[in-house]
Amino acid sequence: MFDYKLLSALAAVIEQAGFERAAQLLGLSQSAISQRIKLLEARVGQPVLVRANPPTPTEIGKRLLNHVQQVRLLERDLQSQVPALDEEGLPERLRVALNADSLATWWGAAVGDFCAQQQVLLDLVVEDQEVGLKRMRAGEVAACVCASERPVAGARSELLGAMRYRALASPAFMARHFPDGFDAERLARTPALVFGPDDFLQHRYLASLGITGGFLHHLCPSSEGFMRLTEASIGWGLVPELQVREQLASGRLVEILADKPIDVPLYWHHWRNGGQLLVHLTDHLRQHAGNWLVPWTGMAASAASGKNL
Amino acid sequence: MFDYKLLSALAAVIEQAGFERAAQLLGLSQSAISQRIKLLEARVGQPVLVRANPPTPTEIGKRLLNHVQQVRLLERDLQSQVPALDEEGLPERLRVALNADSLATWWGAAVGDFCAQQQVLLDLVVEDQEVGLKRMRAGEVAACVCASERPVAGARSELLGAMRYRALASPAFMARHFPDGFDAERLARTPALVFGPDDFLQHRYLASLGITGGFLHHLCPSSEGFMRLTEASIGWGLVPELQVREQLASGRLVEILADKPIDVPLYWHHWRNGGQLLVHLTDHLRQHAGNWLVPWTGMAASAASGKNL
Repeated sequence: MFDYKLLSALAAVIEQAGFERAAQLLGLSQSAISQRIKLLEARVGQPVLVRANPPTPTEIGKRLLNHVQQVRLLERDLQSQVPALDEEGLPERLRVALNADSLATWWGAAVGDFCAQQQVLLDLVVEDQEVGLKRMRAGEVAACVCASERPVAGARSELLGAMRYRALASPAFMARHFPDGFDAERLARTPALVFGPDDFLQHRYLASLGITGGFLHHLCPSSEGFMRLTEASIGWGLVPELQVREQLASGRLVEILADKPIDVPLYWHHWRNGGQLLVHLTDHLRQHAGNWLVPWTGMAASAASGKNL
Repeated sequence: MFDYKLLSALAAVIEQAGFERAAQLLGLSQSAISQRIKLLEARVGQPVLVRANPPTPTEIGKRLLNHVQQVRLLERDLQSQVPALDEEGLPERLRVALNADSLATWWGAAVGDFCAQQQVLLDLVVEDQEVGLKRMRAGEVAACVCASERPVAGARSELLGAMRYRALASPAFMARHFPDGFDAERLARTPALVFGPDDFLQHRYLASLGITGGFLHHLCPSSEGFMRLTEASIGWGLVPELQVREQLASGRLVEILADKPIDVPLYWHHWRNGGQLLVHLTDHLRQHAGNWLVPWTGMAASAASGKNL
């Protein structure tokens, strides 16, 4: 069998983003961690990580990490049957990549009971879908929530539902920029908010009004920041309806054009051999995600671009 | 003088995180962008960027970017006096790094009026303080909000005030884990929430109760996600008071121990020769930040660690 002391050292260095923190986590000296990595590299005959800040896994390193995470999940299944094997008595960690808007809205409420029942600790990673799926492929996360349907090799994807976005602004913003009523041409010349280079929701909204080409925009890579900048009349943007129910009810934010939402599907990607914990979480999400997400009826193609999805 | 067509191409590739998007931004073909970068490299006699995904600047590339951003800010000052120089009529962009909790709470409200008056577009970057200050040094941002007082070379820092954090949990979480009343030892064995490897607020809180060493925790790198997971009874954690006034008033969240806050100072770092726009923003923040931040009276040393600060 593999020497899992060496593999744990590799996993700790990557997951903790450094040798020092890995040493702290494992209760070892930094030089002991270094030794283990070197020994691992001697065994596999090539480097397993790039000594950068933070360290990153090489191709072979990624394959080893993928293996470690899968073994961990399988160990957990065994431990529930053979508790004595559970050396440290610590809850299992489950690493999940998800889009910023899901974490800012429905995710916590959807998995709260699950975490309490299963005594699982979550390592959440906020990534756009390309990076999230890349992390799955590299074995850095066990599962991923994103707008892309296509699973990576060895994984399954299933539809959870869709996030409904609405194009919102503050009443002050509307009064300042549209004193004579709404005008689509003018919208492209008023500052929008954009989450980041992968957020095309504002582009899609403008395109749906027949406006193509560039538009003024702020960049704000934070879900709650995005909402706060909208409230502060800094720009208009597509915001998850779940996040702003109260603001819409109180009139602090208004829809730019009445009832013109954009829905973005969300898929749950998980390893096929991810162990029972992942199976349970998948069941749990399948059952509960509908409390927050709307049914998705659209075409997958139109969803290829989304706000950090 | 330098050839600013070449320098703009470099800035666009870095800021847009790719050649294709840089080309879109500048309205050029990708090969034109490539040509400009190559020409720039021929002139300076060494590579200005590493062709990775996304491309990153080399040391010399960073110095050039720093220069570009400073020139842009100075150009802005001139344009306000000589409007004809303003080729495109587009608002200036100001790139600012700040901690996640500031963006999720007071930042938007504090700069809303400023953005409208000055017609400035913001490029916000969420970073912890080390990376934020590194980006200042590299010339990638014009200013930075973080908990560290020490300015980088060529910049100034000034105190804006402090963020007040409170250790919070849901009533259900308290009932589940502390049915017989609060117990500090037990707190270390109930799941905490931690923002990321640089977030030591929970450690500090436990230390203030006499508890050192490890503790169970989830990782959740999102300010709003952090609050949502607290609401969903997934863990306890230090949350900015500004973010949860309503939850505290309604009793949806409660303080673990009555009135035991942790204050974290926030400093505004800005270039000394950053131009008038930056001077105005600095004045504006100096004047208004106190509406959201509390006065800071502590020692700088105790603030070296904070939640994504």
